[in-house]
Amino acid sequence: MMNRMYGTGLACVMFLLGCVTASPASAADREKLLSEPGVYGTFAAFRIETDWGKLDQAMRIANLTSFRGVVEQHREKLAIDIYLLRGLSDHADFMLRVHGTELKDTQQFLVDLQNSAFGRYLSSVVLLNGLTKKPNYVPGFPEQLKTDLKGSSESGPYVMVLPIRKDTEWWSLSQEKRAAMMQEHTEAALPYQKTVKRKLYHSTGLDDFDFITYFETAKPEEFHALILALNKVKEARHNRRMGNPTLVGTVRSLDQLIEVLAQ
Amino acid sequence: MMNRMYGTGLACVMFLLGCVTASPASAADREKLLSEPGVYGTFAAFRIETDWGKLDQAMRIANLTSFRGVVEQHREKLAIDIYLLRGLSDHADFMLRVHGTELKDTQQFLVDLQNSAFGRYLSSVVLLNGLTKKPNYVPGFPEQLKTDLKGSSESGPYVMVLPIRKDTEWWSLSQEKRAAMMQEHTEAALPYQKTVKRKLYHSTGLDDFDFITYFETAKPEEFHALILALNKVKEARHNRRMGNPTLVGTVRSLDQLIEVLAQ
Amino acid sequence: MMNRMYGTGLACVMFLLGCVTASPASAADREKLLSEPGVYGTFAAFRIETDWGKLDQAMRIANLTSFRGVVEQHREKLAIDIYLLRGLSDHADFMLRVHGTELKDTQQFLVDLQNSAFGRYLSSVVLLNGLTKKPNYVPGFPEQLKTDLKGSSESGPYVMVLPIRKDTEWWSLSQEKRAAMMQEHTEAALPYQKTVKRKLYHSTGLDDFDFITYFETAKPEEFHALILALNKVKEARHNRRMGNPTLVGTVRSLDQLIEVLAQ
Amino acid sequence: MMNRMYGTGLACVMFLLGCVTASPASAADREKLLSEPGVYGTFAAFRIETDWGKLDQAMRIANLTSFRGVVEQHREKLAIDIYLLRGLSDHADFMLRVHGTELKDTQQFLVDLQNSAFGRYLSSVVLLNGLTKKPNYVPGFPEQLKTDLKGSSESGPYVMVLPIRKDTEWWSLSQEKRAAMMQEHTEAALPYQKTVKRKLYHSTGLDDFDFITYFETAKPEEFHALILALNKVKEARHNRRMGNPTLVGTVRSLDQLIEVLAQ
Amino acid sequence: MMNRMYGTGLACVMFLLGCVTASPASAADREKLLSEPGVYGTFAAFRIETDWGKLDQAMRIANLTSFRGVVEQHREKLAIDIYLLRGLSDHADFMLRVHGTELKDTQQFLVDLQNSAFGRYLSSVVLLNGLTKKPNYVPGFPEQLKTDLKGSSESGPYVMVLPIRKDTEWWSLSQEKRAAMMQEHTEAALPYQKTVKRKLYHSTGLDDFDFITYFETAKPEEFHALILALNKVKEARHNRRMGNPTLVGTVRSLDQLIEVLAQ
Repeated sequence: MMNRMYGTGLACVMFLLGCVTASPASAADREKLLSEPGVYGTFAAFRIETDWGKLDQAMRIANLTSFRGVVEQHREKLAIDIYLLRGLSDHADFMLRVHGTELKDTQQFLVDLQNSAFGRYLSSVVLLNGLTKKPNYVPGFPEQLKTDLKGSSESGPYVMVLPIRKDTEWWSLSQEKRAAMMQEHTEAALPYQKTVKRKLYHSTGLDDFDFITYFETAKPEEFHALILALNKVKEARHNRRMGNPTLVGTVRSLDQLIEVLAQ
Repeated sequence: MMNRMYGTGLACVMFLLGCVTASPASAADREKLLSEPGVYGTFAAFRIETDWGKLDQAMRIANLTSFRGVVEQHREKLAIDIYLLRGLSDHADFMLRVHGTELKDTQQFLVDLQNSAFGRYLSSVVLLNGLTKKPNYVPGFPEQLKTDLKGSSESGPYVMVLPIRKDTEWWSLSQEKRAAMMQEHTEAALPYQKTVKRKLYHSTGLDDFDFITYFETAKPEEFHALILALNKVKEARHNRRMGNPTLVGTVRSLDQLIEVLAQ
Repeated sequence: MMNRMYGTGLACVMFLLGCVTASPASAADREKLLSEPGVYGTFAAFRIETDWGKLDQAMRIANLTSFRGVVEQHREKLAIDIYLLRGLSDHADFMLRVHGTELKDTQQFLVDLQNSAFGRYLSSVVLLNGLTKKPNYVPGFPEQLKTDLKGSSESGPYVMVLPIRKDTEWWSLSQEKRAAMMQEHTEAALPYQKTVKRKLYHSTGLDDFDFITYFETAKPEEFHALILALNKVKEARHNRRMGNPTLVGTVRSLDQLIEVLAQ
Repeated sequence: MMNRMYGTGLACVMFLLGCVTASPASAADREKLLSEPGVYGTFAAFRIETDWGKLDQAMRIANLTSFRGVVEQHREKLAIDIYLLRGLSDHADFMLRVHGTELKDTQQFLVDLQNSAFGRYLSSVVLLNGLTKKPNYVPGFPEQLKTDLKGSSESGPYVMVLPIRKDTEWWSLSQEKRAAMMQEHTEAALPYQKTVKRKLYHSTGLDDFDFITYFETAKPEEFHALILALNKVKEARHNRRMGNPTLVGTVRSLDQLIEVLAQ
Repeated sequence: MMNRMYGTGLACVMFLLGCVTASPASAADREKLLSEPGVYGTFAAFRIETDWGKLDQAMRIANLTSFRGVVEQHREKLAIDIYLLRGLSDHADFMLRVHGTELKDTQQFLVDLQNSAFGRYLSSVVLLNGLTKKPNYVPGFPEQLKTDLKGSSESGPYVMVLPIRKDTEWWSLSQEKRAAMMQEHTEAALPYQKTVKRKLYHSTGLDDFDFITYFETAKPEEFHALILALNKVKEARHNRRMGNPTLVGTVRSLDQLIEVLAQ
């Protein structure tokens, strides 16, 4: 019943917020940004100040209009995905994943966001920068494994992001040794290919980690089983740090996030 | 005498707060959520902002009414347990343990809590996500040990939550080696089975730890002796991190927590 | 001269604050709580918000009256010792050491303190829980050493609290090996028995440490020499963490702490 | 369109801000400060308080005028470079790199900045001090390598700053062993000489690190490849800490930074 | 020109602030406190709240009068040195070094400071306690080395404070082995004796470190070279932690610090 009460208010909120829109990147562009190598991916997690909750709803709606405006505007160049972390991660409330061909476009978007009326209630708590690259090791894998890797994966609504820092020994190993370990890693992950969607970003030098590993699943227990399986292979011994932070949340549309924040 | 003074005021508070209630999950559902494998358990510890203490009591009561409403509403799907940490742990004031079959129900509850009038005074300081699973090693244990494990345990009022991260070597050991060590671990814990209630959550990938270990006891010195005994077995050498945070508190009903916060 | 000016004001403050008193635990009870095994000892260090300093003195006095009331009330069951940390430790202003036979009594005291008018200006920055136990190793020590240990120690005004976490190897050593190392440890400490008072709390599982070591002395340089001597014995190699935080302060009566805070 | 709206306002802002200027260090002096050994380089990263965003624009412009004044005034003695970190690094909004022949000139500049009307909204979150020195190892390198090192590098707009702490073993190696490793390091970096500009500061004793490594590039993926290449050489095994913090941003003029902050 | 404007205001500030003075410890006493063994040295670094900068100048001057009063009053018993850290260290604005024969005198001074009108704008961010002692190893050094150590050193204006924690192995080494390593350490430091003034404090048990090393120099590059030289000797391998925090600043008189803070 409490929900019903909110529900009525929110229909109205969504109407008010719905006025400002802009043309997003065409589906084709988004598809390319999300699948091609040589694309930058930035993960920015924010905490909303407690002051925000003390604003009245009209003020919150006005501020969220600015948020919507900034996101819509930058969707012309960038693929922007939105996640609600609150309730599944501590210290952060929501996360943006931004794909672009130039890091400066991503920076401009996040600067515009923080300069917006809404941005004044945000603290940047995690920021990870990565780069998509052609697979390092797959070309040398057995043909059967390559074929198996081509199956598609189910997606969302759950998202997990675990940054990884390898130890210094890892990087001094020969390409052959690393390839053999990565083949074992890949084979261990194979049983989860259908239920857990994975994406890898290389971040050495661009933040304090070497990789950002991104996962989507409808079944967190499958994701858990996948990480357990990956922990058992030799390559895992070269993870100096994995997680910390571990970011867990759910995929949301811009409208859905705004609905949560407008309450 | 100071207590008596508060007492009078609180009888009144509890009366005012008592108006909004809702039907909780049936006892049977709660029993299942708390005993079956495949259930998600989330531990969320909160700190209350110092602003809270500066509100007048009428305002605090109004806000706590929203807290009660959110908890009652979500008890339809979730088993929600409440703990007072203040006075036994630093940096956090209370903790919620939420069991559900879907993490998104837990997220919705915690989002509604933080969006409530009361939630605006809360900071999320620890959030741990875990999963209950069928015992990994028990099926291979000797029959006598299996029988011994079936005894029931006394519960509360004290609660301790210690998350654990294993080292990378642990995961690379064979199932047999881990089973042997876990049998030694289980035998070491056996003398405390009656006085200390235990529950295990698997959290690899879902937060920065591998396990969340949950304990209830009427005798903290027995719990202390149990952990000392567990520290002495070989398996303990594979704990890269144990505790940090260690969360200590007491089991409370929703009414009892509200009584503490209304003062 | 600045002191004299304050002095006059404070005589008045102390008079105003002096009205609310209550009967403390009898000296005999306090003696037992401080000397017997099986007693819980909690160390709670607090930081006072900077807002406190901006209150006028009348308001501060009113708030401190609530502080005094809470302490006096709980002294019926608990032995409460008070320490001023400000000026000798960073991040914390004062510390309470609370001995009781039940942790829930200690929790109730600290909850009442944080709920009091004064408590609204406090942040809990360190909280350590321990348990006094019969000596583990002393019964096996040579008779001469046992006799030497019976000498009494001078106390205060300085207090030092160092929590200790042992490494996992320590706990896997046999009782004999640990006893031999603890005898060496005890002999190294003997020369300081007269000038440095020591008390040990076991805290495995009850916080992030295994021991809380408590010291009082009139001569910090003697305490320093004692810790240096203890660092040189083999047992010290099994300290994974010692201090961090190191809490240093001076013993104060409730009146003395209130005098400092009223200024 | 939102941009256009801001754009109009900003032309006006820049006009208002444009009135106070001062003569910067001559280009020749700046060139010397940026190229010679024996110059101190300080990296100061700041976070802007959320209060800033709640000021009206006229107030922000008035405060930024003070910022401009302080920077212009100190450019008589110091080479001051400006970077926008917001959107590419967490916890910090902008960074100043200050080169001077005396650290006290740098301190005076940063004190004047924090004492200015704008400075009251700043928190100092990272401060690294280093010193430029003649190359330690280059004189002993083969002639061909020395020649190769003379090529010039493209610059900006991206900047990355990674502080490094070596392990204690590194410093105990003989000069010959370190020189051999540094030659391998230098050869690994050579392919990126054209696309990534590098500058090295020695900071042992002057902050918690041993080196501050500074990079500029137009192609972050080239910088990423450079750091990967450097991670593979033996010398990298002696990095006890690298990054943490990793500071990533873009080169900006004073006018450009002010434009961002005025919005 | 901005400086000139401030300059006029400050002449006036210094006049207003100049009224309250008190007789400092005689030069002889200060000399003894700074040179004799058995003296306690406390290093207290403070951050000034951002609220401070938002006070008007008259209010700041009134508050700084209280600061001056407290320092002058305690100079009767204590040797108090003052350093400006802002602009050369992060997170802290200024540091006090306090020498006294009793730690409780130092505590009383710092309590009076934090209770003063000015103190209400201060956060205590680092507090290190140490003790001066007769040289441990020098008596056994060769005569020539002892003679060389007697040369005097130039002082300020730069100050660096690096706390050090030794590893547990260090303390278990024999006195002879430690003496041999300390002789090597001393010889490595000798070339910098004239340009870098050093002072050592023993802090085992009194804070989280074993030593506080204090340096003054006019030439930070000489200090840097000294620390590099010390890193190369065997004793350095037993530094488990060195710096972190590293405190860097400049020596200031009370008047000079007040002038900076009044602006």
